[in-house]
Amino acid sequence: MLTRLELAKDWVRDAGNFLKENISSPLEITEKTRYDDLVTNFDKEVQEQLVSNILHHFPEDKILAEEDDEKIKFDPEIPHLWILDPIDGTTNFIVQKDNFAIMLAYYEFGVGKFGLILDVMKDKLYWCDSHKAFCNQKELESKKMSLDKSLLGVNSYMYRTNSGGLLDLSHQTLGVRIIGSAGISYGQLLEGKILGYFSNLQPWDYAAGSIIAEKIGFVTLTTSGEKPRFNCREQVFTAPAYLVSEIQKYIKS
Amino acid sequence: MLTRLELAKDWVRDAGNFLKENISSPLEITEKTRYDDLVTNFDKEVQEQLVSNILHHFPEDKILAEEDDEKIKFDPEIPHLWILDPIDGTTNFIVQKDNFAIMLAYYEFGVGKFGLILDVMKDKLYWCDSHKAFCNQKELESKKMSLDKSLLGVNSYMYRTNSGGLLDLSHQTLGVRIIGSAGISYGQLLEGKILGYFSNLQPWDYAAGSIIAEKIGFVTLTTSGEKPRFNCREQVFTAPAYLVSEIQKYIKS
Repeated sequence: MLTRLELAKDWVRDAGNFLKENISSPLEITEKTRYDDLVTNFDKEVQEQLVSNILHHFPEDKILAEEDDEKIKFDPEIPHLWILDPIDGTTNFIVQKDNFAIMLAYYEFGVGKFGLILDVMKDKLYWCDSHKAFCNQKELESKKMSLDKSLLGVNSYMYRTNSGGLLDLSHQTLGVRIIGSAGISYGQLLEGKILGYFSNLQPWDYAAGSIIAEKIGFVTLTTSGEKPRFNCREQVFTAPAYLVSEIQKYIKS
Repeated sequence: MLTRLELAKDWVRDAGNFLKENISSPLEITEKTRYDDLVTNFDKEVQEQLVSNILHHFPEDKILAEEDDEKIKFDPEIPHLWILDPIDGTTNFIVQKDNFAIMLAYYEFGVGKFGLILDVMKDKLYWCDSHKAFCNQKELESKKMSLDKSLLGVNSYMYRTNSGGLLDLSHQTLGVRIIGSAGISYGQLLEGKILGYFSNLQPWDYAAGSIIAEKIGFVTLTTSGEKPRFNCREQVFTAPAYLVSEIQKYIKS
C-alpha cells in the first residue's frame, strides 16, 4: 500500500500538471483582503482536487487549507493534519505564469512528518522523508555559508521598513532577493541560492518549507525567537541553525 | 558569409557553454569598488574569449567592455562599436550559480543594431534583428498591461530609499521583484513577467536590453527623462512607451 508521502507526491505532481495544461486559460480573479491579495478559480480548483484526494484515501484526516473560509485550528492533538497552499505566489501565477508553487505539509500530533513544494513551471519537487531532503531525485545537502558571502530572500515591506531588523541584517550580506512566493523562496533556500528567508507568513506559507529545511540543518522561528504558532500571520524566518545566534543580533521583534 | 549577428549568437552561446561546463570550478574572486562589487576569473576569461572573437573577425571594431581598466568612450562617430558585459549578475554567479547573463550589444554610428542576452543556466538567448525580438527561436510580442496589474523589477537601494520616486511608483503596482541581474531582469521584462525595470546602471547593463526591448515597444530613459548617456552609471528604466507619461508622474530625478 502506498504511504501518505508516496500518494502526496503523485497528487501534487498531478495538480502541477493540471496548472501547466491550463496556464493559458482565462482566469477568474478575485480580491481577498486587499487589491494585491488575489485568488483565482485555479487556487480553488487545485485545493478541491487535493482535498478530495486526501479525504478519499484518509477520510478521518484533517486539512488546514488556505482557501477555506472556515479554517480548522492547528492542534497537537490532531493525529493526522495536512496543511495546504494550493497556489503559493498567486500574483506571480497571474502576472508571470511562473514562479509559483503548490505546497503541502503533513503533521502527526503536531509534529511535521513531511513536506512537499512543487515549483510548477520548473518541474522541481522539493520534498523530504523522515530523514532526508530532496529536489526531485537529488538529495539536498547542507552547506556551510557565512552571512557576508550570502544572499537573503526577503519580504519587500519588512526589508524596506527594517521591520524586525531585516534591513540591518541585510547590510551584513551581499544583498537581498525578492521573488514573490514563499514556496519558490524555500526552493532557493534548499538549493543554497539564498541563506535565509524572512517574511510575514501564514502557516501554509512556511509549513512544508520548514519541515523540509529542517532535514538539512535549518530552523524556523519568529522574529521574536519563538516557534511559529501556526494560527495566524507572523514574521517568520528560516535560516541555518549554526547562524541563528548571529542573525539574532539584528533580527528582533 | 555570416553576419555580425549570426557570429555573435554563436560566440555568446559558446561562452555560455564554457561557463556551464565550469560552473563547479573553484573561483578566484576579487573585490572591485566595494565588498559587494565582485569580479571572478571567469568574468575576465569570458570577456577575453568574446573580445578575441570580435577582433579576429573584425579587427577595426571597437569594444566597450565591463572588465577593461581603460574603457573606450561611447561615441556616435564610431562605425562599429560593441558593448560587452561578460557576466552580468556576478554575485548571483558566485552565490547561486544561477540567474546571471552574458550580454553583448552592437552599435553603428551610435545606433543600436542588435543585442543579445544569454540566461546561461536556463539556456535562454534573448536577441533581436533590426525588426523583431526573440527568445531562442520564439518571437516575442508586446503585451498591453496596466500598471495596477503589473510587477516591477527594481534595484533594492532605489526601491527602499524611494530614489527617483521608485517606491511611490511601486505602490501603483502589484509589487516589486529583485533578481540581482540586469540581464535576467531584462529577460523577465521581454517575456512580460515584469512591466518595467528600474536600476542604477552602467552602459553594459542596459545596452543589449534596451535595443531588444525597443523592438516590442519599450523605451529606455534616465529617471530625469533623458536618453542614457552611455558614459557613466545612471538611474535608468526600461518601460512600455505607452506608459511613460503615467510612470513619469512618479519617477523623477
